[in-house]
Amino acid sequence: MRSLLFYLSYLLCLCLGILSVVFVSYWNYKWRGGFAWDGSGLQFNWHPVLMVTGLVVLYGNAAVVYRVPLTWRQSKQPWKLLHAGLLFLAFVLSVLGLCAVFDYHNAGSTPNLYSLHSWLGICTTALFTAQWVLGLAAFLLPWSPLAFRKLLKPIHVWMGSIIFFLAIASCISGINEKLFFVLKGNTNQTQPYSKLPPEAVFANSLGILIVAFGLVVYKILSNPDWQRPDLGREEDSFRPLIQEES
Amino acid sequence: MRSLLFYLSYLLCLCLGILSVVFVSYWNYKWRGGFAWDGSGLQFNWHPVLMVTGLVVLYGNAAVVYRVPLTWRQSKQPWKLLHAGLLFLAFVLSVLGLCAVFDYHNAGSTPNLYSLHSWLGICTTALFTAQWVLGLAAFLLPWSPLAFRKLLKPIHVWMGSIIFFLAIASCISGINEKLFFVLKGNTNQTQPYSKLPPEAVFANSLGILIVAFGLVVYKILSNPDWQRPDLGREEDSFRPLIQEES
Repeated sequence: MRSLLFYLSYLLCLCLGILSVVFVSYWNYKWRGGFAWDGSGLQFNWHPVLMVTGLVVLYGNAAVVYRVPLTWRQSKQPWKLLHAGLLFLAFVLSVLGLCAVFDYHNAGSTPNLYSLHSWLGICTTALFTAQWVLGLAAFLLPWSPLAFRKLLKPIHVWMGSIIFFLAIASCISGINEKLFFVLKGNTNQTQPYSKLPPEAVFANSLGILIVAFGLVVYKILSNPDWQRPDLGREEDSFRPLIQEES
Repeated sequence: MRSLLFYLSYLLCLCLGILSVVFVSYWNYKWRGGFAWDGSGLQFNWHPVLMVTGLVVLYGNAAVVYRVPLTWRQSKQPWKLLHAGLLFLAFVLSVLGLCAVFDYHNAGSTPNLYSLHSWLGICTTALFTAQWVLGLAAFLLPWSPLAFRKLLKPIHVWMGSIIFFLAIASCISGINEKLFFVLKGNTNQTQPYSKLPPEAVFANSLGILIVAFGLVVYKILSNPDWQRPDLGREEDSFRPLIQEES
């Protein structure tokens, strides 16, 4: 019963994650003209797609991998690798997402990093970078002292949830800002945001999907029954992935 | 030492909360023309002040009252009353904050509830209302069955943190939206947001203060050492505040 409830939540998490990626991609493909990497607005369109896919969906999935009951009887090591790998991919996508917006701004001589959305977003990515590097040093590399890994683990878990929260808040403010930018209703091509044209309803729904995804991930993480049980093999939990040659 | 760390965090929480209220009030007083209740933009200015004060600062303070170690040897009842009272005040302020923006929109025939910020904000206030009513029914009124209160408590705690997260995300998107609205640089009165005039730096800093306040509250709530210990007086924990006459 406990497992069934978990797997239902996990399925919901996967569906909401996939839907978020589909929605953000379709929004930019259908209403914002698609994608390119040429400094134009089409390059900017990669920004929301890469940030939502990396910093929210991949990140959220990486956070819950240890919670899958099917894996609890197995060694933690492959799941550690999957956790780190998914987060590395999330990191690469988020850096590319930042490049997309910086290139677009620079090509049009638009200033960077002035809005609250951008301040929050850049802090989130900086914290994520620090978290990934510290996580690599503490939990994957062999020369990290056990005491340091034990000390870092609760901080790593706490920072992980904070970065996820900040990423979602950044996405919400970013989608909101973008819709005010493009739906001005001063051309024949678009109705104003306030008239809720189909693009506005669709992109607002993307925001709600992202929040729903975040809540399901948070629910999975905060349920103590769904935590990987400590089998007393502390050396396994804290063993770095890459073993030192003996 | 444990208490000292708590009180330092609590002091930080109080300072950040007060600073957030001061910043949001000063922003609207100094750069947005101050306050009125006449359907004009001056009425709108109550909206950010009341939402930040109610849904973030009072709400966050209400969430951490049970964590103060000084209160652990005392009966839980007065702290329950303080928790409920602060949340009731937060609820009143947030409803007034909604009235401010609805009145302003209606006076200018501006549509309501079209932006992602407004969708998220109205969902947050609706959830908060449901949470407060359910909390009243379960934990304060005498006819609520013990089993219902026990069942509701973890949901109440979980919903509480979710509403707080949504409130902060709503505030961030709202401040960001407001700055794009008013700092267009198409009048002599304002520079554009992208030039980061003093108002933009100040209001962006308000956003960062709100996030910092949220993180400190979350840190206090998520530290198991700072939870009110269960002294085995289950009947005290779950006793409704208003006793039935026997």
